[in-house]
Amino acid sequence: MSIDLTYSLEVQDLIDRTRTFTRDVVLPIEDEHAGDITAGGGDALRIGMQQAAKDAGVFAPHAPLEFGGHGLNMSDRAPVFEEAGYSLFGPTALNIAAPDEGNVHMLAHIANPEQKQQFLAPLAHGDVRSAFAMTEPAPGAGSDPSALTTRAVRADGGWRINGHKWFITGADGAGFFIIMARTSGEPGQRGGATMFLAPADSQGIRVGRHIDTLDRAMIGGHCEVFFEDLLVPDAAVLGEVDRGFEYAQVRLGPARMTHVMRWLGAARRGHDVAVARVAEREGFGSRLGDLGMVQKMLADNEIDIAATRALLVRACWELDRGDPASNATSIAKTYAAEAVFRIVDRSMQMCGGMGVSGDLPLARLSREVRPFRVYDGPSEVHRWAIAKRVVGAAKRELREAK
Amino acid sequence: MSIDLTYSLEVQDLIDRTRTFTRDVVLPIEDEHAGDITAGGGDALRIGMQQAAKDAGVFAPHAPLEFGGHGLNMSDRAPVFEEAGYSLFGPTALNIAAPDEGNVHMLAHIANPEQKQQFLAPLAHGDVRSAFAMTEPAPGAGSDPSALTTRAVRADGGWRINGHKWFITGADGAGFFIIMARTSGEPGQRGGATMFLAPADSQGIRVGRHIDTLDRAMIGGHCEVFFEDLLVPDAAVLGEVDRGFEYAQVRLGPARMTHVMRWLGAARRGHDVAVARVAEREGFGSRLGDLGMVQKMLADNEIDIAATRALLVRACWELDRGDPASNATSIAKTYAAEAVFRIVDRSMQMCGGMGVSGDLPLARLSREVRPFRVYDGPSEVHRWAIAKRVVGAAKRELREAK
Amino acid sequence: MSIDLTYSLEVQDLIDRTRTFTRDVVLPIEDEHAGDITAGGGDALRIGMQQAAKDAGVFAPHAPLEFGGHGLNMSDRAPVFEEAGYSLFGPTALNIAAPDEGNVHMLAHIANPEQKQQFLAPLAHGDVRSAFAMTEPAPGAGSDPSALTTRAVRADGGWRINGHKWFITGADGAGFFIIMARTSGEPGQRGGATMFLAPADSQGIRVGRHIDTLDRAMIGGHCEVFFEDLLVPDAAVLGEVDRGFEYAQVRLGPARMTHVMRWLGAARRGHDVAVARVAEREGFGSRLGDLGMVQKMLADNEIDIAATRALLVRACWELDRGDPASNATSIAKTYAAEAVFRIVDRSMQMCGGMGVSGDLPLARLSREVRPFRVYDGPSEVHRWAIAKRVVGAAKRELREAK
Amino acid sequence: MSIDLTYSLEVQDLIDRTRTFTRDVVLPIEDEHAGDITAGGGDALRIGMQQAAKDAGVFAPHAPLEFGGHGLNMSDRAPVFEEAGYSLFGPTALNIAAPDEGNVHMLAHIANPEQKQQFLAPLAHGDVRSAFAMTEPAPGAGSDPSALTTRAVRADGGWRINGHKWFITGADGAGFFIIMARTSGEPGQRGGATMFLAPADSQGIRVGRHIDTLDRAMIGGHCEVFFEDLLVPDAAVLGEVDRGFEYAQVRLGPARMTHVMRWLGAARRGHDVAVARVAEREGFGSRLGDLGMVQKMLADNEIDIAATRALLVRACWELDRGDPASNATSIAKTYAAEAVFRIVDRSMQMCGGMGVSGDLPLARLSREVRPFRVYDGPSEVHRWAIAKRVVGAAKRELREAK
Repeated sequence: MSIDLTYSLEVQDLIDRTRTFTRDVVLPIEDEHAGDITAGGGDALRIGMQQAAKDAGVFAPHAPLEFGGHGLNMSDRAPVFEEAGYSLFGPTALNIAAPDEGNVHMLAHIANPEQKQQFLAPLAHGDVRSAFAMTEPAPGAGSDPSALTTRAVRADGGWRINGHKWFITGADGAGFFIIMARTSGEPGQRGGATMFLAPADSQGIRVGRHIDTLDRAMIGGHCEVFFEDLLVPDAAVLGEVDRGFEYAQVRLGPARMTHVMRWLGAARRGHDVAVARVAEREGFGSRLGDLGMVQKMLADNEIDIAATRALLVRACWELDRGDPASNATSIAKTYAAEAVFRIVDRSMQMCGGMGVSGDLPLARLSREVRPFRVYDGPSEVHRWAIAKRVVGAAKRELREAK
Repeated sequence: MSIDLTYSLEVQDLIDRTRTFTRDVVLPIEDEHAGDITAGGGDALRIGMQQAAKDAGVFAPHAPLEFGGHGLNMSDRAPVFEEAGYSLFGPTALNIAAPDEGNVHMLAHIANPEQKQQFLAPLAHGDVRSAFAMTEPAPGAGSDPSALTTRAVRADGGWRINGHKWFITGADGAGFFIIMARTSGEPGQRGGATMFLAPADSQGIRVGRHIDTLDRAMIGGHCEVFFEDLLVPDAAVLGEVDRGFEYAQVRLGPARMTHVMRWLGAARRGHDVAVARVAEREGFGSRLGDLGMVQKMLADNEIDIAATRALLVRACWELDRGDPASNATSIAKTYAAEAVFRIVDRSMQMCGGMGVSGDLPLARLSREVRPFRVYDGPSEVHRWAIAKRVVGAAKRELREAK
Repeated sequence: MSIDLTYSLEVQDLIDRTRTFTRDVVLPIEDEHAGDITAGGGDALRIGMQQAAKDAGVFAPHAPLEFGGHGLNMSDRAPVFEEAGYSLFGPTALNIAAPDEGNVHMLAHIANPEQKQQFLAPLAHGDVRSAFAMTEPAPGAGSDPSALTTRAVRADGGWRINGHKWFITGADGAGFFIIMARTSGEPGQRGGATMFLAPADSQGIRVGRHIDTLDRAMIGGHCEVFFEDLLVPDAAVLGEVDRGFEYAQVRLGPARMTHVMRWLGAARRGHDVAVARVAEREGFGSRLGDLGMVQKMLADNEIDIAATRALLVRACWELDRGDPASNATSIAKTYAAEAVFRIVDRSMQMCGGMGVSGDLPLARLSREVRPFRVYDGPSEVHRWAIAKRVVGAAKRELREAK
Repeated sequence: MSIDLTYSLEVQDLIDRTRTFTRDVVLPIEDEHAGDITAGGGDALRIGMQQAAKDAGVFAPHAPLEFGGHGLNMSDRAPVFEEAGYSLFGPTALNIAAPDEGNVHMLAHIANPEQKQQFLAPLAHGDVRSAFAMTEPAPGAGSDPSALTTRAVRADGGWRINGHKWFITGADGAGFFIIMARTSGEPGQRGGATMFLAPADSQGIRVGRHIDTLDRAMIGGHCEVFFEDLLVPDAAVLGEVDRGFEYAQVRLGPARMTHVMRWLGAARRGHDVAVARVAEREGFGSRLGDLGMVQKMLADNEIDIAATRALLVRACWELDRGDPASNATSIAKTYAAEAVFRIVDRSMQMCGGMGVSGDLPLARLSREVRPFRVYDGPSEVHRWAIAKRVVGAAKRELREAK
């Protein structure tokens, strides 16, 4: 028994086939549509790409075997998702884009058999998309989830939900929503949240505008959503009442890491574009790639890629062991969000005027990865959590020493 | 005689009025059009804003008095341009946007009386726009201007010009072009360039596509331009034959610094948006602006703003003394291009999800300032030039010591 | 009236002579003693160097004319002190080292004629050294001066002082102390401090150990000092009772800036050592100074030097105008403390193994400049103060807008 | 078969015992001698600590079982060495300090049975120390080993060696030297080096001065060494003639990684010192450790520690697989050297005046870790190598595509 970083032959094969599929099939589609998935066709485009992924045997690597997936654990997802992320459209093609991928993960862990049949099965197969309705505009649930203000109150045979959400990824066109609502307590308190499942065509769900964010590759946009006297039956409760925050944690750590996997793939593409260019172009009496300042950027990209991947391996392994891994996922997410931005930014810089134009995918990648330092917890909130843990432990030691 | 950093009363008054005009008149227009000047109306929009600037007495602070301007030197331009730059549309409104502003500067120094009448006068008054056609796609004149490939050859009573340019700012809709073409020597040689003036409707000038760059606030876009057997008379020569690179230097240093002035204004707006927000919003039991990690970002913004401005003051003063100031302008440009990006990036981060959306101007500002690290010489080229000077001086000392 | 960055002929002459004196006379002494002023001879060494400075006409540039100095204002001190700082021993040679230089400045502003005669005159002439006893070990006055715990209580015809200070620069061998003690209020309150003057041989003053800090160039060390029933007469009060914090501000801003001036000189020497070396040595088929990664470090040094100097010019000009300049000095100090460290660190890196050894002065310079990020207010405290100002102003605007 | 990051029970036990031994036994000795191993007693101190390590069963974790060690592979060494590195004297106590540890590693791979008996056995047992004599002053073998100038020429029954080395760690007091000398070819050529083994008391070996480097924890210093007509028999050749550079590679990758392990331990101690302090001390109305800017530094330390360790795990695993792992070790070394410096620097900053003094071990740790960015290849050389690989691969692809 000892450290081992080898993937099984089956997983390695899936990695290889995902790489081939992403580069040969998906990347040309992304480039054709300049990375704008909505302008590129939205769900029609998605359905076509997903069929191709099914044909290539790379569809749904994360979904349980009984729902048609490959059943990979987190450790094995990492290299596969990274390969899919090499194209901004790759995760959609494999049905592992946010938020569907995280919702599959959570439903597989928490939903009851009826809910799995009704919601998980079609989601895993790509028949519908889904949305996870948690974030609210200030002063509601944002970086601090306990500020949750959306309310679910007891109604005849079920619950009546009212609230205003935003930055709800994939809401436009989703088949169903997982809704986080307060069933007890007050905003600012840590307990009292419940998750509900509701078909998107339920009366009382209204999808508002797409928020015009820097990124463009997430199907269904980042939308405002309004719950206006939405009535749901008791059977709509996911898991148990008042345990919503707890379940959100089940989703949170893995969802953070799959974000890292996908964006690492995107950053690598940016790096590869720059490498290819500086290996070919000349200037100042030399190949650009042989100039010291360019070499520094190239090496820093390689270091950032390696460190992101290494931190990801660690966090995934902790998650697979059943560890909540809060610290490891915070560290990996914070490092990765900043590293992928640096990688793409340096790649852009190496390509000069072309780099900041639409003639190369770098400007697009740059817009796409920037929000990652905010989504899924701003870097500052993660750093705050990391520091709280280490200082908290030290305070406990001090008290015990007295 | 001693250090003095005071502006004269007249200049201070112009600074104040420019601030008021920019914030009250121009900023609402920018926000209405989300910073996209072409989508916002292009030249029609420009003409309206310029009339308002004339009415407010803030038009053309840089132009010579005899052409209706305020005749400010570089030192005095700095605070005025910075105030105008507070809105992305401000420089256009005051007729001090690139490349017109730099072209006015250069024509005032080099053009003969007839050329001034024909080209400078209408440009200074905002009757036409102009373009400076120097940059070429690889392997032509890019970061290394000596690679110039566009050719002007002797023709009957004038010159015949052929070449392919790109990233020509403002080309679409320009009234005339200043064209850099090789009249002797070969690409890679430092001499042999000449500048020519040509009305945009001359036969043989073809404006191609707008290059889809991250920035959107420059009227007339960044275009490809083709010169195809363009015939110009001898009177079209700006200054003297074969002195084009030398004249480009006249334009270069000041143009770099006015870029810094304008973008510093844009960065300050980003900072102010963030400050206003974190001073108001609460989270984690405090005003956001009282949280240490936010305070760090705020202070770093203040430091970056102060350092950019201080370097600018130095470089402008050297230029006003008649010093070529190559080192001071390289230093100020390099620092500023990176600082304004950091300022806007931190401002975006402080505003979280709103920051990366169109609900605040920060994402737009971020797109706008990023190319500044590439335009007017990538940071790497400036660093290379700075290092060459210091090492060159040390080598000379070593030789002399022997 | 306009921006002017020219020094008068007299000041320029003093700059030039200070440069020559520092390099020809002082630098060889510093190198001989490897920058350790105590090991190098302490006060005996100081007296010799100061005589040489007097002979060269460069002694005491800051002291009032009536006390034998050159009477320079802050703006003019900047380039002179920078030249003196080029050697770690230069400030001592010119009698402008901390804390004497700041004490001269403060006494010139606040002391009464008798005090000037007794304390300022010999200090300005280099006949004695002095110490400024403010900082205390936790939980006393450190980064937060209001925590002051040293007490002065009314005694017969004067005051009895008790307290424990540390990091008191120059205490060992000082001729007199300026003592900050609480005369009213409680630790944590902003008022109630008074400054007292006391000869070092007064009964009740005990100088403890030298704290073993990274830096070695300050004569008299950084010491612990104990006041044990020290009796001082009423005539020992500097200025007025209970105004000590206010007077400390008079000293603080200028003292911060003179630190920057001196350390900027030290950083420039580090840079010059590296430049000379990379301009001469070869490696990897090239002069080291022509390698891109070295060029990047060289250029970043040049940028850091220029930005530090430019921020210093600004802050000094504000101080000379009579502005408290708290923000400008905080910004300049914070930037400078980090910049000089980066400059020396890069210089060390450029010199490889030699750089981290005693064969070059870089390792010594690195030890010397590191504490500057802590002394005179840690960077974090300055950033906190800068942010407080900008957020405070925004809050006021918000309140007024309501 | 899948990713596994678990250590075996035996290794985990050794990790735990090493942690206890280092903290309980070694750390007090280091602190007593302020981290200066020579001043603290040199070899006498070493022998005492090594006996204690033997008694605790933690001695020589890396040495082959037949020579009394624990026979750990690289992956398992990582956490053990890190625990030992928690004290600057820990590696010496466990006999895993540079250069002995790397020499044991190389001799175990390359020496013949007689050489193992004569040199490896006493070295592994701590009976003698050793030195690895490769680095030369300019223009000899430094960052670029192929510049090797030390010559070994055929002599009667052996070789005669002449040359000048420096930065030879541990030379003063070493029992034997491994000498890299050129047996064919010219300086600048990649082949032609041979390794020789020579007892330190051989005629013709002269150890010169200790170079006064920032670090103080390596026993025997960093010395100049002169080989003056040193005669060695044929039996002194380690491995085969002219294969010295190849063997150096065997030593190089692992030696780099063990440096990282040890220095990571040192950085962690610095971090722990700071954490304990900010968890206890108050200031600005709060525990220091609850202030946002301190939290940022704490979190960045945690991230740097985690990333260093994760990159180390990866590189060690590649080495254990038999991969030369040049890229993985370059990446891990470059990241680590910069990260450990940042960690210690932030820790120092968090502790303010105490941090830069001898009252805490941070200033000492800072001096100790700084040279790591130069030793074993400056960061710039590693970045150059990393970039060469990625650009080289891209160029090959371009050629093949044509």
